[in-house]
Amino acid sequence: MEVFIEPIGRLMNEFSKLPGVGKKTAQRYAYRVIGMSAEEAKAFADAILGVKQRVRLCRVCGNFTEEEVCDICKMRDKSVICVVKEPKDVIALEKLHEFKGVYHVLHGVIDPMNGVSPNDIRIKELLARVGEGEVKEVIMATNPDVEGEATAMYIAKLLKPLGVKVTRIAHGVPVGSELEYADDITLTRALLDRKEI
Amino acid sequence: MEVFIEPIGRLMNEFSKLPGVGKKTAQRYAYRVIGMSAEEAKAFADAILGVKQRVRLCRVCGNFTEEEVCDICKMRDKSVICVVKEPKDVIALEKLHEFKGVYHVLHGVIDPMNGVSPNDIRIKELLARVGEGEVKEVIMATNPDVEGEATAMYIAKLLKPLGVKVTRIAHGVPVGSELEYADDITLTRALLDRKEI
Repeated sequence: MEVFIEPIGRLMNEFSKLPGVGKKTAQRYAYRVIGMSAEEAKAFADAILGVKQRVRLCRVCGNFTEEEVCDICKMRDKSVICVVKEPKDVIALEKLHEFKGVYHVLHGVIDPMNGVSPNDIRIKELLARVGEGEVKEVIMATNPDVEGEATAMYIAKLLKPLGVKVTRIAHGVPVGSELEYADDITLTRALLDRKEI
Repeated sequence: MEVFIEPIGRLMNEFSKLPGVGKKTAQRYAYRVIGMSAEEAKAFADAILGVKQRVRLCRVCGNFTEEEVCDICKMRDKSVICVVKEPKDVIALEKLHEFKGVYHVLHGVIDPMNGVSPNDIRIKELLARVGEGEVKEVIMATNPDVEGEATAMYIAKLLKPLGVKVTRIAHGVPVGSELEYADDITLTRALLDRKEI
């Protein structure tokens, strides 16, 4: 006799596909769904289908959108492009309400060890955008890890001949942290990139 | 401008209804769904709807089942009933492969502070089952907390006049734990309920 009846086991299996969800968590989620009203469950299922049906990639920047071109590309300053790895990086930056330019989502970084070559990410599209001549600055905001750094450097080399300013987000000690706990490379960068105050 | 486009925001909102899921986790889950194939997303949505359409409560024990009477009630020893608060407690006990009797799910415990009276949980149904005469023992396996204890005592009082043996799961120090960290009440119970070895 199975411990879980089939519909519950099946839903638990689906929840297990979400990042960081183990068997116990999947069980809690499934029991919560059983406790929902039929309307609530339908709204949940519809939201899952809706995201697949309605979300597409912006033709210009590659971020998630419902239309052909996203609101950010439509409405904002096109002279500055911020290059990021994934759509969720756009969210992280947008939350600051600091950046007024547009984005370019690479959908990955160059990672030869895992078979990701420059042709597998949206570099050509970025070069084409910059080639149109309106762009003054490209900010490389890929992650400060090995692949992110390498990708930023690779793209910077391709962009410079086009006469555009290429910048990299600053590295240093995180605000509010303690020097004691910063790793050596971060602390070295913080020291080298020091600014006059 | 909203940080999240509507379909993504809506799905995040649905995920936030699951226990322990905050905004950040809901975002990770939503992005995972966007990354699914259309078939995967459909299977996920179907599993949610399926659980609502197919899961019902067993007419006898109140546990989740797809039929009128669950497999446990159909196939197992009806002379011993184990009384639990919720369906997930049945899962916890079934995993042991130790108990050979049947269950009775109360769907709650008596909790006057939160407006749950004896009439709000499946006590009448338990009395009716015991009244049929086949039952020899009722094991009270409600949680070892204030409401669980009170409910166990309340039900025991109602059952005893029916001539049935009523037992309570043992309290004591958890196996593999250290005495030093056991709370006073647990340690006192462990001492009082000591057994000859």
